[in-house]
Amino acid sequence: MTSSKQVALKPGDTVGILGGGQLGRMLALAAARLGLKSHVFSPDPDSPAFDVVQHCTCAEYADIEALELFASDVDVITYEFENVPTAAAMALQARRPVLPDTKILETTQDRLIEKNFVNGLGIGTAGYADVTSAESLRQAIAKIGLPAVLKTRRFGYDGKGQAMIREDDDLDAVWAALATRSAILEGFVPFEKEVSVIAARSADGHVVCFDVTENEHQNHILKFSYAPAAIPAALADEARTIATKIANALNYVGVLGVELFVVPGKNGPGLLVNEIAPRVHNSGHWTLDGASVSQFEQHIRTIAGWPLGNPIRHGQVTMTNLIGDEVLDYGKWLTVPGATVHLYGKGAARPGRKMGHVTEVKPHR
Amino acid sequence: MTSSKQVALKPGDTVGILGGGQLGRMLALAAARLGLKSHVFSPDPDSPAFDVVQHCTCAEYADIEALELFASDVDVITYEFENVPTAAAMALQARRPVLPDTKILETTQDRLIEKNFVNGLGIGTAGYADVTSAESLRQAIAKIGLPAVLKTRRFGYDGKGQAMIREDDDLDAVWAALATRSAILEGFVPFEKEVSVIAARSADGHVVCFDVTENEHQNHILKFSYAPAAIPAALADEARTIATKIANALNYVGVLGVELFVVPGKNGPGLLVNEIAPRVHNSGHWTLDGASVSQFEQHIRTIAGWPLGNPIRHGQVTMTNLIGDEVLDYGKWLTVPGATVHLYGKGAARPGRKMGHVTEVKPHR
Repeated sequence: MTSSKQVALKPGDTVGILGGGQLGRMLALAAARLGLKSHVFSPDPDSPAFDVVQHCTCAEYADIEALELFASDVDVITYEFENVPTAAAMALQARRPVLPDTKILETTQDRLIEKNFVNGLGIGTAGYADVTSAESLRQAIAKIGLPAVLKTRRFGYDGKGQAMIREDDDLDAVWAALATRSAILEGFVPFEKEVSVIAARSADGHVVCFDVTENEHQNHILKFSYAPAAIPAALADEARTIATKIANALNYVGVLGVELFVVPGKNGPGLLVNEIAPRVHNSGHWTLDGASVSQFEQHIRTIAGWPLGNPIRHGQVTMTNLIGDEVLDYGKWLTVPGATVHLYGKGAARPGRKMGHVTEVKPHR
Repeated sequence: MTSSKQVALKPGDTVGILGGGQLGRMLALAAARLGLKSHVFSPDPDSPAFDVVQHCTCAEYADIEALELFASDVDVITYEFENVPTAAAMALQARRPVLPDTKILETTQDRLIEKNFVNGLGIGTAGYADVTSAESLRQAIAKIGLPAVLKTRRFGYDGKGQAMIREDDDLDAVWAALATRSAILEGFVPFEKEVSVIAARSADGHVVCFDVTENEHQNHILKFSYAPAAIPAALADEARTIATKIANALNYVGVLGVELFVVPGKNGPGLLVNEIAPRVHNSGHWTLDGASVSQFEQHIRTIAGWPLGNPIRHGQVTMTNLIGDEVLDYGKWLTVPGATVHLYGKGAARPGRKMGHVTEVKPHR
């Protein structure tokens, strides 16, 4: 990671952002507040991030020439999503620093490798087993027990590419429906709460974690985040320690999200890591309005080679995602005292599509 | 103002912003957060607001054809500065609603008309007199007394176009140096504090004021703002009442700033209006991080025909302007706990140039 330590942007320099969704858009807005320009690269002509930058490239991730032109126009490159194609990453890295290092994606793109990595750090996860066939699914169930969740090893998000398995399910049918040859069976975790930690790590190894966030999902999609999570202080410390350990082990530069389950234990509640997101994370959106420095700004600071911020939370924060046609209620949200409304500038409010979010801060007493 | 009541933007619509400085930039960023696009019009190719929008027009304000093309591309038009040329305003108004109504500028562009307007509402100002010659300057001094401040009636800002006059000054020389035929002499106000109120008024006549802000100037340029101002609650109420009265009397749609002096009086401190700024105002920058809805967002809401927000302040807020080469200290500011740094993306850090600002929020206890 020597090269990343050499990145030192000046105000007026340009951040290259791969991906034009709401995360790219909010990264570009954070860069703007710090006096940095952004250039967004995305294959989708309707990318919401295009609207907030002067320079954008609309091209496929396989278009190496377009990637090279993009790289030449920027001073550092980052990305809003974990599935950056290897060829694209290599073409970009040849010209400009790409942060976080895309080697990290080899770990986080694959649920099996990620779980092995986390367990290797002495951090707990759900029980899991590799599944490559209906036969190995039966063996995995024998080992893990039921209920359990069968997931594709790669490219799943928001509940896509996974199936809950219960007693008496038709295992051949479940396996066929997943349409993959590389899956993982995860034991179902009877969790008390889902929480997450957003951590920022700079090239010099400094890590700053935001307050632990408590998350509520609906239909496998994040619906509410609450900061701070209503968990004992010692458990919150442990969650931050886990995120810090993971960021350090990955030699990470940027912001990452670590999702954890709070599970009951003999000596009080404990933590299991569910997933690592090598990027800014939906459960950190509350930081935009609920803290003096947001996750997006922390990410921009780390990739710019600037010092991390020391964020202060403004109060008890609730973040509500506006999903699908819930966004049509924006007029109602605009009048809620203390609410801050974010709309992502997306077109059609398709079911399950993240269209915006609202932050509500209840000041400290 | 019937036409302004008909403005009702939808997410995805475009706001036209006349002027590409930091105010236009922060307006565009606020519009983006609400899912609106912005198109910035400015004659300066280095306009910082250009960096945060996909569509911009770099042309002179006298270029009617460029103005008309700009107007055709947007759904509503606003401006970041009070000196919009009349011909430009007329060309734009013929095609799209322009808010606030530029007729208001006839009042606020001219210090004499503005003071007559304020006094006509029964609101106090410093004593003042019209000055058109060295001879009438002598008559004005006889009426107002000394010390007093001689100001051009139009186009002055940040202490430019004004001169303090004391006993024994050479009045012919002072008058000649101002190089104008239309000036105003204002009695010097021995104020205790300078405060301001940022008010937002919607087309339906609803007014929402932010907390009164206390301001400290250095070399005639705002250096610090503190919210809330350390003044008695009754005086703060009176300040907000004054701003509301002014906004209503102007039939204003948008955000305006009212600068006031707190002056000693027999029955406790009183208020005199110093100036009206028909736009977002530097002393309202603290609202970006110190409140749930900022002045920039309130302005965008009013011109979009959206409901006003009910902002909640997150704590005791201090805003520090970074002027000229003070911006070079940004690295130090980045590490101050609880500080939020804004850099405007301007090039050269010329003396007196507003390059950025920092907000610090001390949470409520």
